[in-house]
Amino acid sequence: MKIAILPGDGIGPEIVEQAVHVLKALDEQFEMETAPVGGAGYEASGHPLPEATLKLAQDADAVLFGSVGDWKYDTLERALRPEQAILGLRKNLKLFANLRPAILYPELAGASTLKPEVVSGLDILIIRELTGDIYFGQPRGVRECPDGPFKGEREGFDTMRYAETEIRRIAHVAFQTAQKRGKRLTSVDKANVLETFQFWKDIVTDVHREYPDVALDHMYVDNAAMQLVRAPKKFDVIVTGNMFGDILSDAAAMLTGSIGMLPSASLDANNKGLYEPSHGSAPDIAGKGIANPLATILSAAMMLRYSLNKAEQADRIEAAVKTVLAQGLRTPDIYEAGTTKVGTAEMGQAVVAAL
Amino acid sequence: MKIAILPGDGIGPEIVEQAVHVLKALDEQFEMETAPVGGAGYEASGHPLPEATLKLAQDADAVLFGSVGDWKYDTLERALRPEQAILGLRKNLKLFANLRPAILYPELAGASTLKPEVVSGLDILIIRELTGDIYFGQPRGVRECPDGPFKGEREGFDTMRYAETEIRRIAHVAFQTAQKRGKRLTSVDKANVLETFQFWKDIVTDVHREYPDVALDHMYVDNAAMQLVRAPKKFDVIVTGNMFGDILSDAAAMLTGSIGMLPSASLDANNKGLYEPSHGSAPDIAGKGIANPLATILSAAMMLRYSLNKAEQADRIEAAVKTVLAQGLRTPDIYEAGTTKVGTAEMGQAVVAAL
Ligand SMILES: CC(C)[C@H](C(=O)O)[C@@H](O)C(=O)O
Ligand SMILES: CC(C)[C@H](C(=O)O)[C@@H](O)C(=O)O
Repeated sequence: MKIAILPGDGIGPEIVEQAVHVLKALDEQFEMETAPVGGAGYEASGHPLPEATLKLAQDADAVLFGSVGDWKYDTLERALRPEQAILGLRKNLKLFANLRPAILYPELAGASTLKPEVVSGLDILIIRELTGDIYFGQPRGVRECPDGPFKGEREGFDTMRYAETEIRRIAHVAFQTAQKRGKRLTSVDKANVLETFQFWKDIVTDVHREYPDVALDHMYVDNAAMQLVRAPKKFDVIVTGNMFGDILSDAAAMLTGSIGMLPSASLDANNKGLYEPSHGSAPDIAGKGIANPLATILSAAMMLRYSLNKAEQADRIEAAVKTVLAQGLRTPDIYEAGTTKVGTAEMGQAVVAAL
Repeated sequence: MKIAILPGDGIGPEIVEQAVHVLKALDEQFEMETAPVGGAGYEASGHPLPEATLKLAQDADAVLFGSVGDWKYDTLERALRPEQAILGLRKNLKLFANLRPAILYPELAGASTLKPEVVSGLDILIIRELTGDIYFGQPRGVRECPDGPFKGEREGFDTMRYAETEIRRIAHVAFQTAQKRGKRLTSVDKANVLETFQFWKDIVTDVHREYPDVALDHMYVDNAAMQLVRAPKKFDVIVTGNMFGDILSDAAAMLTGSIGMLPSASLDANNKGLYEPSHGSAPDIAGKGIANPLATILSAAMMLRYSLNKAEQADRIEAAVKTVLAQGLRTPDIYEAGTTKVGTAEMGQAVVAAL
């Protein structure tokens, strides 16, 4: 089985390096091939998603992705900016199902800005549709305003769209995932305002008939943003569209106070996937050897479970991460008095040792 | 000067009643006329925004609004549901600037789910554009998908649009408001994905040239949702579009843990406005006399300041609210051990007494 390794920019290379060490320390061996992406792709061949990188990702069984982006690319035209690589990979590989757990490890309860009783033991999963919605809907652009009170002046516009198939398939993923967890699914929409999300709500309700063992409720996105702050532990699985999912999954991740710990998976219809930490490229700390590699290491574990069918190896990695936390090892982002501060490489080595 | 009083549904009538008592207890007297809206409008004349109600609001100098919505209207077709009243009032009265303070009163610091050091003294203002964006953009609907891989099947769609004038005028409101506060403005967009919000960012940057004394920064909406949880006190004024503002202003309100305390103003180009509490109609506690009237009373204070040019009277009301909090009076939503639990009417009377 072949894994495409795309380290990217900022702290990406450092954290991916540690995840690769962990993968190499397993009983199973995988073929791994590395390619540049994001700013690194642009430097190497003038495009954030070089053709050879896309081809490697397409041919592989799974993709391990670091992070992309750096301020130095801010002045490039949009099509050449690093984040286009991740949008291009999602679209080209048809990675429509983004799974983002927000888990608060008991050892890290103090890292949250929320009171311990509100977040301790938090374990929710946000399923974000990733290839549709206003992210990709055509037409879009800046044009002469065609009608209404501002006719004739310039306007920016985008199109939110969801086809029935797109909603059905993400709903199936969500119900099936909920079946394996707490059997409760919250579908987040804005059906009181948006036609797209009234349609979303209707289709999700229809798919629910195939999953009578899952309790489904519907929540408006503004209320969901409130409930995540008020009582996040009431959620089990949340499913929503690409745009709302972008906002809510980041808010949920930040509830834990330890976004350096959170992995993510982006899957296609055959469980091929791209795996990346939920945090960004943090160019301010790149190259300093202090970034937390655990989100990437846990992303590698998700890869073993979902795409490579090696659940046991995934369990081993997750257990090893728990061990190093129990040993009191902490990178600076999750450091608290009384624990031991370590760097990126030390943390990676500790996970390998704990395997 | 004439005030249109629109109590609405759920707890709306009870809380508006107390705000009216407070207004009547001032030195100045105002003409007030009441009309049904939301579910009450539908009951009275078959539409959530009856023509006579809209006319009253149009003719008045300001509108004091309670809240709309009740589960019993959930099965009505969308055009007849209570929340259409608020959308209709915004659009018809051209109330494009929504001001939503998120303030945490020192006495209520314990009510927040966030740690006291993260939120105590919180005082941010979210300015949400209210008559544009995907809320009103045409075309929208459910149609046969015209292109792409799902061509021919059903799809839901909406249009996000912002014309240059719409962005300029809300930017001016935001910069001018920031000038009167901490002189820091954060414009929230999703310029890395949406054409509408790249355009938004460009126009806001352009308007900034007229306000060199205000520090402007730009933040992606997903990051803004995270920063509100991580370090909300770093914000002063936030300006954003209708959809992002809906989500972020509710999240910000919930940070305080006391949404029953938060007023809002929705203004047109001449400072005529609609004033309403930030919370909803809470049908579950309607009629029980336990709802918190303070958000509505503070909305009346905003009305005096922004639309009726009676800043002194506004100050008096705000001081009276602080007095009752200092007296330890609390409705159940903000009650803590050691304080005195009171009902809606008692709280209103206490504010009148404190005037
Ligand atoms: C970089 C950006 C385009 C991307 C998104 O908005 O999807 C990011 O925020 C994410 O969530 O992966
Ligand atoms: C009721 C609904 C249409 C409304 C909105 O989305 O604007 C509400 O959530 C609000 O924020 O006032």
